[in-house]
Amino acid sequence: MADEKTDKLSIADMASFCKRTGMIFQNSEIYGGFSGFWDYGPRGAEIKNNIKQSWWNTFVSSRDDVFGMDGTTITHPKVWVASGHVDSFSDPLVDCKKCRSRIRADHLVEDTLKISVNGMGLDALDASIKENKIKCPLCGGDFTDVRAYNLMFKTNVGPIDDDKSIAYMRPETAQLMFANFRLIADGMRARLPFGIAQMGKAYRNEISPRDFLFRSREFEQMEIEYFIRPDTIDDCKLLTEDMLKQKALFLSAEAQEEEDEKHAEMTFGDALKEKIIVNPHLAYWLILEYNWFTGLGIKPENLRMRQHKKAELAHYAVGCIDIEYNFPFGWKEIYGLADRNTFDLDQHIKHSKKDLSLFDEELKKRVVPRVAAEPSQGVDRAFLAFMFDAYDKPAPDHTILHLHPKLAPAKIAVFPLMKKDGLGEMAQKIHESLKETVVSFYDAAGSIGKRYYRMDEVGTPLCVTVDYDSLKNDDVTLRERDTGNQVRIKISALEGAINDILAGKASLSDFGDFIN
Amino acid sequence: MADEKTDKLSIADMASFCKRTGMIFQNSEIYGGFSGFWDYGPRGAEIKNNIKQSWWNTFVSSRDDVFGMDGTTITHPKVWVASGHVDSFSDPLVDCKKCRSRIRADHLVEDTLKISVNGMGLDALDASIKENKIKCPLCGGDFTDVRAYNLMFKTNVGPIDDDKSIAYMRPETAQLMFANFRLIADGMRARLPFGIAQMGKAYRNEISPRDFLFRSREFEQMEIEYFIRPDTIDDCKLLTEDMLKQKALFLSAEAQEEEDEKHAEMTFGDALKEKIIVNPHLAYWLILEYNWFTGLGIKPENLRMRQHKKAELAHYAVGCIDIEYNFPFGWKEIYGLADRNTFDLDQHIKHSKKDLSLFDEELKKRVVPRVAAEPSQGVDRAFLAFMFDAYDKPAPDHTILHLHPKLAPAKIAVFPLMKKDGLGEMAQKIHESLKETVVSFYDAAGSIGKRYYRMDEVGTPLCVTVDYDSLKNDDVTLRERDTGNQVRIKISALEGAINDILAGKASLSDFGDFIN
Repeated sequence: MADEKTDKLSIADMASFCKRTGMIFQNSEIYGGFSGFWDYGPRGAEIKNNIKQSWWNTFVSSRDDVFGMDGTTITHPKVWVASGHVDSFSDPLVDCKKCRSRIRADHLVEDTLKISVNGMGLDALDASIKENKIKCPLCGGDFTDVRAYNLMFKTNVGPIDDDKSIAYMRPETAQLMFANFRLIADGMRARLPFGIAQMGKAYRNEISPRDFLFRSREFEQMEIEYFIRPDTIDDCKLLTEDMLKQKALFLSAEAQEEEDEKHAEMTFGDALKEKIIVNPHLAYWLILEYNWFTGLGIKPENLRMRQHKKAELAHYAVGCIDIEYNFPFGWKEIYGLADRNTFDLDQHIKHSKKDLSLFDEELKKRVVPRVAAEPSQGVDRAFLAFMFDAYDKPAPDHTILHLHPKLAPAKIAVFPLMKKDGLGEMAQKIHESLKETVVSFYDAAGSIGKRYYRMDEVGTPLCVTVDYDSLKNDDVTLRERDTGNQVRIKISALEGAINDILAGKASLSDFGDFIN
Repeated sequence: MADEKTDKLSIADMASFCKRTGMIFQNSEIYGGFSGFWDYGPRGAEIKNNIKQSWWNTFVSSRDDVFGMDGTTITHPKVWVASGHVDSFSDPLVDCKKCRSRIRADHLVEDTLKISVNGMGLDALDASIKENKIKCPLCGGDFTDVRAYNLMFKTNVGPIDDDKSIAYMRPETAQLMFANFRLIADGMRARLPFGIAQMGKAYRNEISPRDFLFRSREFEQMEIEYFIRPDTIDDCKLLTEDMLKQKALFLSAEAQEEEDEKHAEMTFGDALKEKIIVNPHLAYWLILEYNWFTGLGIKPENLRMRQHKKAELAHYAVGCIDIEYNFPFGWKEIYGLADRNTFDLDQHIKHSKKDLSLFDEELKKRVVPRVAAEPSQGVDRAFLAFMFDAYDKPAPDHTILHLHPKLAPAKIAVFPLMKKDGLGEMAQKIHESLKETVVSFYDAAGSIGKRYYRMDEVGTPLCVTVDYDSLKNDDVTLRERDTGNQVRIKISALEGAINDILAGKASLSDFGDFIN
């Protein structure tokens, strides 16, 4: 099975690897598969949960100024009228006049001409297809004009199927935070500035889902709307000088106008000064997110901040900057951050005729808050970035997934050298005891070497082996995934050592000399 | 506002309480509300997450024999053909001939005649409506015959809307575990017996959603399919004698045939002997679930095990038993447990033509595993049961939510007596330090008494108050929600005390004499 290569792993190789290791399966594979839908298997579900929990702890539970919520995915149609999604949440589409295939016009132009189509409108795409005489890749036929195709999944709610009962699967989690804005502000007695956060499913009826988890029809988002008093847009009290001194790779709008699209390293402070980041609140959230990714193990050289070009900005967005990850199929967005001003609340005020302003004690009047920053990211794209970043194949029969211990599906595995002579019982006892504090995996099948390799490829940071000496000396072998190094350690010291190593408070060498 | 009563809290009162405290809002309230859809606000989302995490830790992460998964909610239509949902997942429906209202026939009979309709088929309901001359409650008109109405939400996937592109929102999480059965078994090298578990959204287009979260159109489930070798149905190695000695309230099928429907206390062992529980695997999972509910604070007298009557059983189900909770609107199902035999795998084998059997080393042949137990429950119904069980109103202006510390949205609140004179800073410092291990809430507004009451009604188990003595003596007041008792404690001992009390390892009186 040639599912992984030592040099560069393709997205198809990654999908194959994820299937074999019980991480991701195509939905309904036994029925031929369902295009654009992916199921998380046991290990994938654990990693995904770990990503979500880390995000929630970092950005919601541990903060006094961010309130979580969890709304429905089928949502009242008026929400999507107010937000503009019913009118304009669409992709450009063409039909082949000959074979009737429907194809995304921007992908068609991108794939055929090998150019970036960021910010190209319907007319520009249409002109490009016609000028370059692009034909149907399936049959060679001509295309219809480019038209807009709405991406929301529709359904009918209630016993009668008609136009009045149409509802939409939410295409983003964001709008529910606006619709519930006043209820949350009142229920939590919140004062500006504060944020509302939501994680959960979102749905887009992609014309041509592709790149595995990267562009699927059902996915999960993690989003925050951070509300401020509009007159404080240039003042973010949370942003510190130390944060601004941090460096990262930036691709400015200006650089994108040039031929080579080169990104450059600079401090977040300089990016703010040069208006690559348009307000200090965006700088604050961007740095936090960058640190979240790198804190969970993503290599800094694989992340870059890309400023949106003017042509890309939605009419209401004041400024927008993405974090892109260096995937094998190119630099691609894994996080978007926008200043949305008061656009959304204004729209919902207009359509619902409800008062969504808050009384401000300092200004002594009611104000409609401004979304100074909307951090938005896909859980599945984060999963994919973590996987690519962690993947390594030092030998044809040996894959190592260098996942951060917080993300690893199991934190430790326990093996008896043999099942017999009491080794199995002893290993089981250690496993049961470790399970009380960390997720532990027990495996007694195959050679020890094979068991180590199986754990390496699913990212288990540490393994414990019980052997005949363990019976005499009450000690075990503790091995780490990333180096293969091993130490001999007393069982009584094992739990403490494991917890300290997983928490980054100690390294394996603190517990003895390496053995072989 | 008469939203809560001291004696018996209605479901409408609970909905009102949940709204006011930032727990649950009707979806799209600003647009008039969306019937059958509920959004979890900040505190509700935390409680719900805590329920889900506790369940996942108990039944998945801490077990070697249960594998989690997390699949899509829009699912391949063939899955629901194979499972029988396309043909027969329906509710009985009547139309009013005069005003065209559509009404659930079973609810109509139940509400009008005040009888239980468990197990009544379409014909029996039709006969009952005609014999009793039941008219439309809205206009007095006559009804059509009772007919079946499919409850699955439909949508179209892909760019073309036609019959071929129809897909369904999953009406249960269970079927994805069957569809992925072999992929999971192979990816995890699993050997029988083992289980597959899934949590997540499910959707039912209820004709008349009602009773707040109890019967909504979008909800979350937590389900397990526990697979065994079919010949081991009478042998559950996990079931111990001690477990069987536990007692609970049981309502047998036999007792339901009698007029008064009386439940009786008995041991799980006796219920198994008397075939109220039809196999030992069901007994094992039922006891585990019962202990999960009571371990998280539900009073045993509010739970009863109800055996399904013969007429209620699906044609494939060998036996089924529910856990019911004593809601103000009656004893209602919050958990269902069934022996599904090999029905589902057989169906998917037939429809997919794939081999979903496993090789058994002991029998030296391939076998199609039997689902000896399918534990299934709704997250939202569990939420509702925990809320009703925890709710208490000792005085008109004082509500206490006696939530288990594991479920409480915040574990602790920290207050400065006044914001000035350094008390605010000191309280903030304590709050920041406590936040590293538990979810802490900071509040500096209003009188201390009001702040205590606000925390009591949202279930915060402990409160810390910093006052002028704190500046001199480095101590604070620690108060517990359930009794209002308070002790004075050194700040250096605070974190340890809080963790021990929350974990049930210590009680407040261990840290000093009560003060007033």
